[in-house]
Amino acid sequence: MKLKFFILSTLSVILASPCFSQEALGSSAPVLSPIINPDKTVTFKLKAPKAVKVQIMGDCIADGQVADMSEGDGGVWSYTTPKSLPSELYSYSFIVDGLKINDPSNVFQVRDVANLSNFFIVTGGRGDVYAVNDVPHGTLSKVWYDSPSFGFSRRMSIYTPAGYENSKKRYPVLYLLHGMGGDEEAWITLGRAVQILDNLIAKGDAEPMIVVMPNGNVSQQAAPGEASGGLAQPDFNLPKTMDGGYEASFLEIVDYVDKHYRTIKSKRGRAIAGLSMGGFHSMNISRYYHDKFDYVGLFSAATTEHVRGDSPVYTDIEGLLARQFSTPPTLYWIAIGKTDFLYDANVRYRNLLKQKGYEYEYFESEDGHIWRNWRVYLSEFITKLFR
Amino acid sequence: MKLKFFILSTLSVILASPCFSQEALGSSAPVLSPIINPDKTVTFKLKAPKAVKVQIMGDCIADGQVADMSEGDGGVWSYTTPKSLPSELYSYSFIVDGLKINDPSNVFQVRDVANLSNFFIVTGGRGDVYAVNDVPHGTLSKVWYDSPSFGFSRRMSIYTPAGYENSKKRYPVLYLLHGMGGDEEAWITLGRAVQILDNLIAKGDAEPMIVVMPNGNVSQQAAPGEASGGLAQPDFNLPKTMDGGYEASFLEIVDYVDKHYRTIKSKRGRAIAGLSMGGFHSMNISRYYHDKFDYVGLFSAATTEHVRGDSPVYTDIEGLLARQFSTPPTLYWIAIGKTDFLYDANVRYRNLLKQKGYEYEYFESEDGHIWRNWRVYLSEFITKLFR
Repeated sequence: MKLKFFILSTLSVILASPCFSQEALGSSAPVLSPIINPDKTVTFKLKAPKAVKVQIMGDCIADGQVADMSEGDGGVWSYTTPKSLPSELYSYSFIVDGLKINDPSNVFQVRDVANLSNFFIVTGGRGDVYAVNDVPHGTLSKVWYDSPSFGFSRRMSIYTPAGYENSKKRYPVLYLLHGMGGDEEAWITLGRAVQILDNLIAKGDAEPMIVVMPNGNVSQQAAPGEASGGLAQPDFNLPKTMDGGYEASFLEIVDYVDKHYRTIKSKRGRAIAGLSMGGFHSMNISRYYHDKFDYVGLFSAATTEHVRGDSPVYTDIEGLLARQFSTPPTLYWIAIGKTDFLYDANVRYRNLLKQKGYEYEYFESEDGHIWRNWRVYLSEFITKLFR
Repeated sequence: MKLKFFILSTLSVILASPCFSQEALGSSAPVLSPIINPDKTVTFKLKAPKAVKVQIMGDCIADGQVADMSEGDGGVWSYTTPKSLPSELYSYSFIVDGLKINDPSNVFQVRDVANLSNFFIVTGGRGDVYAVNDVPHGTLSKVWYDSPSFGFSRRMSIYTPAGYENSKKRYPVLYLLHGMGGDEEAWITLGRAVQILDNLIAKGDAEPMIVVMPNGNVSQQAAPGEASGGLAQPDFNLPKTMDGGYEASFLEIVDYVDKHYRTIKSKRGRAIAGLSMGGFHSMNISRYYHDKFDYVGLFSAATTEHVRGDSPVYTDIEGLLARQFSTPPTLYWIAIGKTDFLYDANVRYRNLLKQKGYEYEYFESEDGHIWRNWRVYLSEFITKLFR
């Protein structure tokens, strides 16, 4: 009785708290949304009695499209996908009379640059790789390191695989780089890197490895909200991300990791991969530091033709490439989607490699420059490393 | 030129991506919100041309109140606080025709149970303690440990102070517990624990310490979204949180931490504190394991009169309290706000302590059962530890 009283008292106080309580507005029972139906169609609901038009947008509808929701009893708008959704991670938002909002019934959101969307996972296939499952879990840490090259502390995300803490073993390291507008959080949130690693390592499909996700915007200490200088909103276009400075300074990150973690401190124990700008960085870093990375992954990458400026990283590209491939990496893996705006540049880069006789593997997917592809590429790439 | 082309191309692709882009709706330049004006008033803006009524709620307005926003040019609604806001962390939401939404111009949100709100910080005073500043930063890790008591893996947040990685020193440990509806994320997000620790340690106001933030809901592996079993929405009222099981099992957490971190493995090197239910847990754990914790912090805590059930943790309370105070903790610190619904219970608990002659320190604040108070209590409490 009294326990119940305590719980209800606490609840009522929290509900009365002005800031953290939508219930304080006096709405009745909240709607459940999204609902993954037994046939894997998905139903979305929003209670908005005063709205005139409510729509839903997201990759669960169709790329680039918006669907109208219908109003039912009590001002609850709903929409059910016409077909079952294949197992995947999906994202969506509502549009209420032209204003994009997130689903108030779903606390799960991801940020892409300055945009928040809700997400959900349809399990039973690929989506299972992105879900948290009952498998041994690695540790995710947010680590600050001093950057001598830039003169301030910078933040990175580091994943150590399950068992790392209880072992004396040395582990290989994947350096995993984000794209423009991203930061050290992007592979964790949008990329589901922790879940992908946990799940594929548990299945034996990937070797236990450390994964280092640095921040590739060298004008930044850390992701928005995590750096000094106030709560600056995310900016897509930051200075100095593609001037060679990041690539040239990259060994300061490798040195930090080799010093503080039980790593295999040689080429055979290191992989580097990234998406878009991060693929560009991976291409450049692995070429410039030709004896450091034995596995290279270019996911929807910008290529040599996007190089600008006179950084030593960007000069004599063919000579540096020849040096890199004189003792070739065990794997040079290029992945891109058929409709990616960088597709043609990647064809030309592959042609250059072919012409010079440099071996690479190629993975082509549907669709374009989207996170759904990058999650797939990561899931494929890590199965090929360190075996 | 071509770099610019690449950036713009990438940008246009991302803007065209259906899921992660409010800009894809074709709105013009986004409004800036919130704006902290030079006089420390704060202006909020929302572009919602079709809305009939737009309001703002939050502790930046006044507890429990809602203010009307006014429509200006281009359907941009705005509101400026009538007075300067004292330096603090504030939260808010908008209400558009009765529908609570978050500010689309501000990606910074915190989750309290199932409710998301935007937040911002007014600096120049107490808010500085909650902001990220140019000080040495500790590492925050999300760690899974096997729980023999409950038979599954569980997740906790662990903060190690700046310098930990480069030292061989042993550090004291604060165990910091959340309240009902919270989890291992609550002190990190709503509580700003990392910033408070970083800032006060850097100023020399707190000793460098490890801070362990476990999940006190023993029916849960981890915070919503971080546990297996799908993306279950947060639930305020979880089973088995106040039946003594968590308290009785607590040494499995201490053992894990003592085994994996360079800790001072004795009473003088351990503190335990928590808010609300976490204060109740701290009271019980420190009493039941009387020789383990030298510093105890009860923040807006439920007390002995909320004990129910026949757990050994909950029996012979006066006897166990006598044993605890026979070699008293160096600090037994009780903090509560004047309007907290647990205020009277805390008066009665303090009277019990007084009557028995058990020494404690008392800190009373304005207001009630709210995070603003718990951030203050943490900021005060840690200055008193391990010195």
